[in-house]
Amino acid sequence: MSRILIEHVDAVTLDPDRPLATDVCLALEDGRILAVAGERPHPARFVPDETIDGRELLALPALWNAHCHAAMTLVRGWAEDLPFERWLNERIWRAESALEAEDVYWGTALACCEMIRAGVAGFADHYFHMDQAARAVEESGLRALLAWCFFGRDRSEEVGGAGLDESAAFARRWHGQAGGRIRTALGPHSPYMCPPDALRGAGEAARALGVPVHLHLAESDEQVRVSRATHGRAPVAHLEACGVLEGPTLAAHCLALDDAELALLAARRVTVARTPKTYLKLAMQDAAIRPLLAAGVRVALGSDGPASSSDLNLLEVLRLVGLLEKGRARDAAAMPVAEILRLACAAGAEALGFPASGRLVPGAAADLVLLDTRGPHWCPRHDLAAGAVYASHPSDVRHLIVDGRVLLREGSLTTLDEARIRAEAERRALRMTGQELARVRTYRG
Amino acid sequence: MSRILIEHVDAVTLDPDRPLATDVCLALEDGRILAVAGERPHPARFVPDETIDGRELLALPALWNAHCHAAMTLVRGWAEDLPFERWLNERIWRAESALEAEDVYWGTALACCEMIRAGVAGFADHYFHMDQAARAVEESGLRALLAWCFFGRDRSEEVGGAGLDESAAFARRWHGQAGGRIRTALGPHSPYMCPPDALRGAGEAARALGVPVHLHLAESDEQVRVSRATHGRAPVAHLEACGVLEGPTLAAHCLALDDAELALLAARRVTVARTPKTYLKLAMQDAAIRPLLAAGVRVALGSDGPASSSDLNLLEVLRLVGLLEKGRARDAAAMPVAEILRLACAAGAEALGFPASGRLVPGAAADLVLLDTRGPHWCPRHDLAAGAVYASHPSDVRHLIVDGRVLLREGSLTTLDEARIRAEAERRALRMTGQELARVRTYRG
Repeated sequence: MSRILIEHVDAVTLDPDRPLATDVCLALEDGRILAVAGERPHPARFVPDETIDGRELLALPALWNAHCHAAMTLVRGWAEDLPFERWLNERIWRAESALEAEDVYWGTALACCEMIRAGVAGFADHYFHMDQAARAVEESGLRALLAWCFFGRDRSEEVGGAGLDESAAFARRWHGQAGGRIRTALGPHSPYMCPPDALRGAGEAARALGVPVHLHLAESDEQVRVSRATHGRAPVAHLEACGVLEGPTLAAHCLALDDAELALLAARRVTVARTPKTYLKLAMQDAAIRPLLAAGVRVALGSDGPASSSDLNLLEVLRLVGLLEKGRARDAAAMPVAEILRLACAAGAEALGFPASGRLVPGAAADLVLLDTRGPHWCPRHDLAAGAVYASHPSDVRHLIVDGRVLLREGSLTTLDEARIRAEAERRALRMTGQELARVRTYRG
Repeated sequence: MSRILIEHVDAVTLDPDRPLATDVCLALEDGRILAVAGERPHPARFVPDETIDGRELLALPALWNAHCHAAMTLVRGWAEDLPFERWLNERIWRAESALEAEDVYWGTALACCEMIRAGVAGFADHYFHMDQAARAVEESGLRALLAWCFFGRDRSEEVGGAGLDESAAFARRWHGQAGGRIRTALGPHSPYMCPPDALRGAGEAARALGVPVHLHLAESDEQVRVSRATHGRAPVAHLEACGVLEGPTLAAHCLALDDAELALLAARRVTVARTPKTYLKLAMQDAAIRPLLAAGVRVALGSDGPASSSDLNLLEVLRLVGLLEKGRARDAAAMPVAEILRLACAAGAEALGFPASGRLVPGAAADLVLLDTRGPHWCPRHDLAAGAVYASHPSDVRHLIVDGRVLLREGSLTTLDEARIRAEAERRALRMTGQELARVRTYRG
């Protein structure tokens, strides 16, 4: 592993004892942070392979995307301004019916390009043909928690054609691969799409493999109503009855919860992944985050799939969380900057199984983003952390380091061939949506 | 004036007859759009001074910022995560008490850098020492509607030291300057800060000069309550009684309105400027836009000052409007992309007194932005207009043309010395907030 020295940098550390370290050196070695110090390490003990001039840069722990469907980049922009049912039935599911395994590789690779540029260290992905997604993650240098989604019903109806056994086999095959950068989960779609046996089986398989379950949960009052009518229990209680919550669980959304369910989620140490851009864009039931935190529930942040969220820009998710929580609470002091960063960094890292990531302290994983603060939107530098949350853009991401490796250097990707990925992804996206290929022009690169 | 030819570009025109023109040439001459056509103009009749290769670019009418306090860039990040009263009393007004006239030049110049990079053609500014703001606008090449804010009370208490007479004198001095790029307005602060005589006088002076009144209006239920108790009328009715609404009016916010006031705003053709990021960040009373449009009220979009909004990124305002309106209406089809763009382009241009701007059609003002669509967040190109609204960043703004002049070329400012402006603005910002100058390092440029 290489040694990297970042000199004269300001750092938002997420270390409560020293939240902002100004003009420090960051020394990285063997995928870990060796030192955050005013002086560079003694040259006899640390010879860097690469030195980064950190002046006018802001170091921040890299972000974590706790729920997405990365390969849905392929249907980004394919279903705009439609009511939810038409969005899903006429557009998304129709396009996905044409999904081929290799499409997932290219769609995920495109998503990796976008997330590297947005300062993301890793993402929790939940989709189909996941060997293809794993291949893209392995090549990208990112970290990920990968789950092969299944419904546990009639196989002939299913996208990707996998059931519980394949989801478990995938989890076994890839867990710990890519030098430990890839972790896996079991991926039952949700309690509203999966029969109880599929949920029970997913929980058992996950515990046998020592991996979490990643699924969708309690997205609407209507789902709660149907769950009560069908199973005699609300969705969270239903998952508990199926044994799923006995092991680690990453539950996306959880927008319709009562107090007993909040307490159960807290007691079972479930992490709730919230994706606020999708809730607004698809006009779903929106819900505050602070009541979850107040009840002791773990929360992490995500983008959801680009079919709904349009992009995978986690920097924008940070500010949406701050803005929406302040607005809902009618309290401008609610959800301060440091708390938003904690959710996006340390809480996300822990939820995805990478607890060493998410802080800039000695011993932590060398997962960090260096933001260029020379744009006019960063001036004056009264509050750099607030700038990162409320005004930064992916183009400010100058370098991204994950597991001690530079994935973005001076704004250029080091691991992926972005021009080729864009061209191939677009060709496949237009095939899936049945559009004329004549519309495609050649990218300049 | 120069002739500019943009070849092989896709254009979101906001022309209802042809909303998306693909692979066209845009010919610009004498500050106007000469042609939007499949073929380049005959070389005998049109010899371009500059030709832009439009492949992989998306042309869009440049955006309009209908309400801001540009020089408040100087207090960006100076009052984060504070309750509104502490935000205002302990931070913003304290810093503004140290405001010097020349600070407004540098703060506005910094804002102009940021707005050029965000694809803005012009902005409605409402602040103090406005000759300094006008100087920055003149140099920047942007358009603006400038109002010198005044309170009409005890002069010794006032920032900037101006009253009605100075606000009117400024409006007379600068209206139509900078080749018509600068227009002016009378700038009484608001009905809650200005006595009735000041409002009446502002309306009379504005009508005498043929300029609009730009003010803050009806920001909260509490303001309505106080207005009724003090004047026996809600704020909009009070403005009407003071004669302000007899002339063109640009009213920021209008968050607390009843049906009669909606009807009055529509009848008086008032434009309401909405700045959604500030409402959330300061936890103000938020309010939907669609009911205003349904009542026939004119609406335009803005950033407000960076003290509250953190930045002047109008591209982000577009998506906030879409997301918040869909979420509020619980209807994913609400507030479609074309309507958002109409508000930000044509409606804003008209409200600020530049009705020739806001559309890409022959005869319209040559105010347009060229977005680079090569980023991964634009791929695949299923819906370019939706990409502009929901996924674009200021760094995608490759060129900005205002009044037929290129203000941003290949991502570089042509009119302003950005490095010098950043350094000088930061020096002054730290003086205003009383911070140690030792904290300031030299920008690399």
